[in-house]
Amino acid sequence: MADKSKIWGGRFQSGPSGIAERISESISFDHVLYDVDIRGSIAHVNMLERCGILSEESSHKITDALRSIHAEIEQNGLEFSWALEDIHMHIEKILTDRIGDDGKRMHTGRSRNDQVAVDTHLYLKETIEGQSGLLLSVMKTILEMAEKYRGKIWAGYTHLQIAQPVLLSHYILSWFWKFARDFQLMQFAYSETCQNPLGAAAMGGPNYPVDPDMVREELGFGKSYENSMDAVSNRDYQLSYHFFASRLSLHISRFCEDMIIYNTSEFATIRFSDAVTTGSSIMPQKKNPDIAEILRSKSARITGNLNSLMMNLKGLPTTYNRDLQDDKVYLFDTIKNVTLILEGMKELLTNVIFFPDKLQKNLEAGFGTATDVADYLVAGYHLPFRDAHHISGAIVAIAEQKKVFINQISPADIATILKPFEDKYNIKINLNPAEFTVEKSVSRRGGSLSTSPEMVERQMDKARKLLEEIRLTCF
Amino acid sequence: MADKSKIWGGRFQSGPSGIAERISESISFDHVLYDVDIRGSIAHVNMLERCGILSEESSHKITDALRSIHAEIEQNGLEFSWALEDIHMHIEKILTDRIGDDGKRMHTGRSRNDQVAVDTHLYLKETIEGQSGLLLSVMKTILEMAEKYRGKIWAGYTHLQIAQPVLLSHYILSWFWKFARDFQLMQFAYSETCQNPLGAAAMGGPNYPVDPDMVREELGFGKSYENSMDAVSNRDYQLSYHFFASRLSLHISRFCEDMIIYNTSEFATIRFSDAVTTGSSIMPQKKNPDIAEILRSKSARITGNLNSLMMNLKGLPTTYNRDLQDDKVYLFDTIKNVTLILEGMKELLTNVIFFPDKLQKNLEAGFGTATDVADYLVAGYHLPFRDAHHISGAIVAIAEQKKVFINQISPADIATILKPFEDKYNIKINLNPAEFTVEKSVSRRGGSLSTSPEMVERQMDKARKLLEEIRLTCF
Amino acid sequence: MADKSKIWGGRFQSGPSGIAERISESISFDHVLYDVDIRGSIAHVNMLERCGILSEESSHKITDALRSIHAEIEQNGLEFSWALEDIHMHIEKILTDRIGDDGKRMHTGRSRNDQVAVDTHLYLKETIEGQSGLLLSVMKTILEMAEKYRGKIWAGYTHLQIAQPVLLSHYILSWFWKFARDFQLMQFAYSETCQNPLGAAAMGGPNYPVDPDMVREELGFGKSYENSMDAVSNRDYQLSYHFFASRLSLHISRFCEDMIIYNTSEFATIRFSDAVTTGSSIMPQKKNPDIAEILRSKSARITGNLNSLMMNLKGLPTTYNRDLQDDKVYLFDTIKNVTLILEGMKELLTNVIFFPDKLQKNLEAGFGTATDVADYLVAGYHLPFRDAHHISGAIVAIAEQKKVFINQISPADIATILKPFEDKYNIKINLNPAEFTVEKSVSRRGGSLSTSPEMVERQMDKARKLLEEIRLTCF
Amino acid sequence: MADKSKIWGGRFQSGPSGIAERISESISFDHVLYDVDIRGSIAHVNMLERCGILSEESSHKITDALRSIHAEIEQNGLEFSWALEDIHMHIEKILTDRIGDDGKRMHTGRSRNDQVAVDTHLYLKETIEGQSGLLLSVMKTILEMAEKYRGKIWAGYTHLQIAQPVLLSHYILSWFWKFARDFQLMQFAYSETCQNPLGAAAMGGPNYPVDPDMVREELGFGKSYENSMDAVSNRDYQLSYHFFASRLSLHISRFCEDMIIYNTSEFATIRFSDAVTTGSSIMPQKKNPDIAEILRSKSARITGNLNSLMMNLKGLPTTYNRDLQDDKVYLFDTIKNVTLILEGMKELLTNVIFFPDKLQKNLEAGFGTATDVADYLVAGYHLPFRDAHHISGAIVAIAEQKKVFINQISPADIATILKPFEDKYNIKINLNPAEFTVEKSVSRRGGSLSTSPEMVERQMDKARKLLEEIRLTCF
Repeated sequence: MADKSKIWGGRFQSGPSGIAERISESISFDHVLYDVDIRGSIAHVNMLERCGILSEESSHKITDALRSIHAEIEQNGLEFSWALEDIHMHIEKILTDRIGDDGKRMHTGRSRNDQVAVDTHLYLKETIEGQSGLLLSVMKTILEMAEKYRGKIWAGYTHLQIAQPVLLSHYILSWFWKFARDFQLMQFAYSETCQNPLGAAAMGGPNYPVDPDMVREELGFGKSYENSMDAVSNRDYQLSYHFFASRLSLHISRFCEDMIIYNTSEFATIRFSDAVTTGSSIMPQKKNPDIAEILRSKSARITGNLNSLMMNLKGLPTTYNRDLQDDKVYLFDTIKNVTLILEGMKELLTNVIFFPDKLQKNLEAGFGTATDVADYLVAGYHLPFRDAHHISGAIVAIAEQKKVFINQISPADIATILKPFEDKYNIKINLNPAEFTVEKSVSRRGGSLSTSPEMVERQMDKARKLLEEIRLTCF
Repeated sequence: MADKSKIWGGRFQSGPSGIAERISESISFDHVLYDVDIRGSIAHVNMLERCGILSEESSHKITDALRSIHAEIEQNGLEFSWALEDIHMHIEKILTDRIGDDGKRMHTGRSRNDQVAVDTHLYLKETIEGQSGLLLSVMKTILEMAEKYRGKIWAGYTHLQIAQPVLLSHYILSWFWKFARDFQLMQFAYSETCQNPLGAAAMGGPNYPVDPDMVREELGFGKSYENSMDAVSNRDYQLSYHFFASRLSLHISRFCEDMIIYNTSEFATIRFSDAVTTGSSIMPQKKNPDIAEILRSKSARITGNLNSLMMNLKGLPTTYNRDLQDDKVYLFDTIKNVTLILEGMKELLTNVIFFPDKLQKNLEAGFGTATDVADYLVAGYHLPFRDAHHISGAIVAIAEQKKVFINQISPADIATILKPFEDKYNIKINLNPAEFTVEKSVSRRGGSLSTSPEMVERQMDKARKLLEEIRLTCF
Repeated sequence: MADKSKIWGGRFQSGPSGIAERISESISFDHVLYDVDIRGSIAHVNMLERCGILSEESSHKITDALRSIHAEIEQNGLEFSWALEDIHMHIEKILTDRIGDDGKRMHTGRSRNDQVAVDTHLYLKETIEGQSGLLLSVMKTILEMAEKYRGKIWAGYTHLQIAQPVLLSHYILSWFWKFARDFQLMQFAYSETCQNPLGAAAMGGPNYPVDPDMVREELGFGKSYENSMDAVSNRDYQLSYHFFASRLSLHISRFCEDMIIYNTSEFATIRFSDAVTTGSSIMPQKKNPDIAEILRSKSARITGNLNSLMMNLKGLPTTYNRDLQDDKVYLFDTIKNVTLILEGMKELLTNVIFFPDKLQKNLEAGFGTATDVADYLVAGYHLPFRDAHHISGAIVAIAEQKKVFINQISPADIATILKPFEDKYNIKINLNPAEFTVEKSVSRRGGSLSTSPEMVERQMDKARKLLEEIRLTCF
Repeated sequence: MADKSKIWGGRFQSGPSGIAERISESISFDHVLYDVDIRGSIAHVNMLERCGILSEESSHKITDALRSIHAEIEQNGLEFSWALEDIHMHIEKILTDRIGDDGKRMHTGRSRNDQVAVDTHLYLKETIEGQSGLLLSVMKTILEMAEKYRGKIWAGYTHLQIAQPVLLSHYILSWFWKFARDFQLMQFAYSETCQNPLGAAAMGGPNYPVDPDMVREELGFGKSYENSMDAVSNRDYQLSYHFFASRLSLHISRFCEDMIIYNTSEFATIRFSDAVTTGSSIMPQKKNPDIAEILRSKSARITGNLNSLMMNLKGLPTTYNRDLQDDKVYLFDTIKNVTLILEGMKELLTNVIFFPDKLQKNLEAGFGTATDVADYLVAGYHLPFRDAHHISGAIVAIAEQKKVFINQISPADIATILKPFEDKYNIKINLNPAEFTVEKSVSRRGGSLSTSPEMVERQMDKARKLLEEIRLTCF
């Protein structure tokens, strides 16, 4: 006898086996869609009524019941049944139990395919709206830190080797611009969620004169899909969100790597407050940067979800295949982790103290102004850069060998290094290493990208202006 | 003794070992950058002159020589030397050999870091410009196919099971919209390449009053980076391109999967011309869809490159680390494959014939109009959809069991199925399965996303308009 | 004031923030370790006692209490507290609440690092033991199917084009050998879990004369790690399991792809029973192979977890970093999915019927014996294979053009094709296409790998023998 | 007219287009197979002769010609033709041009499918044999380093925070065991290449009484495949090699991360010699660990190839599909990079100097013996570990606050900390922080995994023994 608990039961002579049921079910993860599912159904039913496909009486009965069910789930949650496979079946079952045959009319002119599609579009659209606030808040916090440390010196690293002095605000702002690009990418992903797929039905459009535009408007989408087969097979909007999440998580992983290294007792140029560190169960002296480490690791998980969805889609026949059910597993997991890393990033930022004074010493020990020596020789004596670079390199070599700072090298050593070049170009070079301080180094930097104090002020102005103007738009 | 062939040789007491040299070299793949590298250097030198950092005489000597070197490489290629590691060293060496000390002045006010950055930005920017033409050409070909098969019937599949009849043009256009979204994504990636990083120097800006805006204008970028540390550590523009390439390749893999299945002797609803098939070395009867298979496989390679770059970047300290050298391996490989799949896709499209007449038979055998029966009962007799679905399912079950088409079922069987519902609702149902043809099915479909002939015409208008208006813009 | 709920609280002036707590917690997923955690602790405490590090009284108090706690969790579950972060803290808290100071002695001579390591090794080891039974059961089912369809004809495909006839048992057994290799890989992964890490402490070994060998023996490991730093940083055993799972899932994805295609109404050479198919909410005639599709999709998820762990580990400093906490998320998810795909695979196998008779017709239509014609010419007339291939190809071309089977081609056409070759080699060729039946084709195949009936019997013998002998061993 | 340069040309009415040819070709990367391809053909032809399928005369003509062609390619290389698609066609064309019709007989009883399969199995098998020597050499170098630094102190880190003192040899040996596991995995991959697929023909076995066992023996495989369909569709042996390469590369990436951090001017506990570092084009003081960074990055590329092959295989119908052609792109690239990272790893090891003396200072500053204090209190006064941990943590907190080492804390401060515990347990605790030296700390460690000097000696013995015994075996 047919399993009547399945809505398509008419044709089945026996119900699915226990294992098959367990494999098929999605209620264990798609239950979070109850809110958008009910709102999508209400919009659909309203449209059916306005298009004359459903009577006013049936329509009101359905939408009233759906609103009650929504309120009840909000308050009491929902009891799952594996036999009722997904959230859509659960809600339809409650509805039909409650209002009878009219409940069965809710599904007129749509299919599970466009119903699920509208649910995931709407759910992701509104998720992004919420997360955009978190991202802006991270950007704002970064800008405030840059303002707070205005004028302080920091070391710029390449290859984890001290390269040159920069302003700490410049270093901090370098993260601002990465997150600003992430916001643009978030906007791109958002605009791909702003499309209404309801009206695609199974994949060719319904046998009713529906008006997708009414649904679009009621649910707040910017436009409708142009093609029903595209609408139900499309996962681009999810891929774009996963990619946004991946790029964001990579930026955070790089920031955390910096912080974890700077937080070692060997660097000791930043320090986390207790709120974001933990102790060791066995080593009492440890103060481990666990939160930064966990945030660093999340890029692995988030990009894993992007990968999984890409592999899932690879070589999949159009239009809908059940493989696609797993898209929600990846999506919900990444959504959760994006919220976590954005909140965690803000928590980290508000719990880190930079020690620019410590850096100044490191910079001197690390010969961070050697480039300035070379550039001085080019600008002042028109030496070819490569020769100037050789001189500066030789000075560093002596400083290293004698274990002194650049500004402690003896005039005799300097003279020995300069001699061949003075002879070659027939000039007399006046070079006093003591003049090459980190403060002068920073101020001397030219061009709009540079770390010179004026340019960093200009950056902060631009960043401030950006934060005032930037908004998600649904187009 | 110092290895003088290395420009930083001043400090090294011994040259790198053979193995280290082999590990470090990038000339074997970055040589393709010679064109943008030379143009970038010319723009840089012109700017140095206009900013008074370089004399007019030196500037002209350098740019004249660079133009000659460019012409010579175009004509004769370039001999590689592993000792000269990368393309930048190769060109600088030729230049310095040729014009002496002035050659060494070319590098004033920049670093290898911003030089490489400007090269890759420019190279990718111009690559995208070229590939955008290929993508538009694929879209145009799809539209022309849709126009050509106007009015023909096709089967819409879900789960690789025949679902409902659609217009063949509708099926074809479903691919148009996917590629249209890819164009938007390409535009996104493009705008991220439209940023000038020159002026970042090693990572803090140069010790010269450079003007990045002049370089930006000469090279055709839309804007300059705001922050030098961001400029040299940023790989977002490459990630975005890899993501564009991945999504594009996934669309193509899905299209190819459809074609490969439709091309089997069992489906036989399309056929490839010989230009895109190959034979078997052992089985003379085979006509293998090799090109479609190779294109399907490329998504694996292209997403692999995205993955590799993401993993490379994970947890990488700012700003520049040598790990990033591998970015070009991934980038150039993906660029090559994007060109290949776009050209291949167009080749496939122009070498495939659809057999819509064959489909019509399949649709009838596959009960593709069963949904229409259900919907007819809802619209005509106000049956709840679920009841109508049960009736339709029962009709299919009988047709399957008796091995006939829906329209060959006996009136007696129909009556037996309808009876309980007629009794339940106290109505008389008039149901003639023979009226449910595929043509009527398609015409009956409602709403702007649907496959009805008018809506498909409207889609073609929209697609035509899009192709007229769509253009890459550099902002 | 210190947060006393954290065992390392002595040094912290304030507890972790709410967000940090939420980011850090692992109890939401690591609670499944309660069983191995308690057994690991009991083994540790027994060893401490036998080594004289813990008094008999303390030891018994602890192990008795742990056994009670175990029984209670088994019966009533466990209430989570985010503040108690992970399963280890939960159990320790219950223990200490119950027996006071002695509870605090349980942790003597170990660290959280080796405790977690022993838990995950043991958990995975025993998981593999359980899953090995499922895999063997799948292999056994495959063998039984091969035996059941003994002597039946099937089509071998390459490029989804019919290539040559094979025995259906041969096709079915081709999957047996893939799973047999997976069993070997499972054994490899298993042997990497058979190592005891307890005794590593935080990473350098404990300050007590512990005896890791006692723990090893009590918990059933084959050996102990050689090096404490390796023991706590190692995730190789997890990687190997993920790789096993990935390869297994890829095999299953390929099998499901075959089945999904063979199950279409166009191929119709297999059929699933209702237990593993589902209907459509809108299209009553559909019988969708959902279970096969879901199983196909799981490779995306399972390889995603492998990827995530690899990316997590990339560039991670030794020894333990908190990033590694996420390993369990990947591991548990993959474990769950491996069970699901193994059970699902068996369910599929027991719910699929092959229609070899249908295939025979396809084979004739698809010219599956064309190769036999070519080989006959080589063997009988010593034609070079390439010439024979040309003749056979020409026969197929005519058959296709005239829309007949090979054995219906007219003698005149055959003669025209043969003429140039008879002239070239001065021979007379006797070629009767009607003799090239699929049964003869299969029987003619030579060599131990081939599909000839004797060789397939031999394969079944070997497979049967393998199943009798194959066992997981812990070394 | 048929394109005669294609061996399957008989059926084609027009040759493949230019683009299709470019997409199809593999000669640009599979040319490296010429050696194994020729050896495989010789073994095949010898077998054909011995089985009476080919005359002695033909056989000798073919094998003599193949040997000459081999020698010529060794000496002069090979000119590629895109029209001749792959290495197999190239060689066959040369052969046929040279000896005429007998050349065409070489392909009797095999197909391109098993020919390619035997080539890739053999190529990878012999590659692994070569690379096993490199891996053993890395292991040997590590052991020698451990022996060289015998008795020296090093810091064990967790969370990049100094945890406890260990012996430097212990730290170094922790890498030995990771590579030892990699060797086992290499052996696993190797044994999967030790299978002869020749005899599978296209996928069902050839129409000739071939003897795969003869080929197996001549080529040095351990066994033959059991099933022809499995033999041509199988890529497991490649997946296993990719996984081996991935895990190896991850180990190396982690080692390099350690070295890069230890090499900073802030840590300065190791130093690379010039052979593996490079300078900056703009910053003369830099000594960048480029080789270590490049090696770290290679895990991204190598795991990318594993990913690509997995995605390629996902959902691929059996048996052979042209998608699989790309397997060689991934394989050759990973082979090249495995050689590079193994050679690079050895180069790094022989160019790094450890400064254990520097570490001793760090350990004291980092409170690396705090755990010892806690354990002393447990062992000496039977304090519960958690209380001892609190005391030790409080000592560290004071040391940090007063910026002194643990052994410089005043007796008064110690007394204040101890007081509540002395009262609680009614004991008198004698605690002299000055006694907690790093040397004593290391010696005190217990159990076979620990860093105590005896255990480390035992480890070295075991490692030495392993290196003597370990050998690849082909089974």
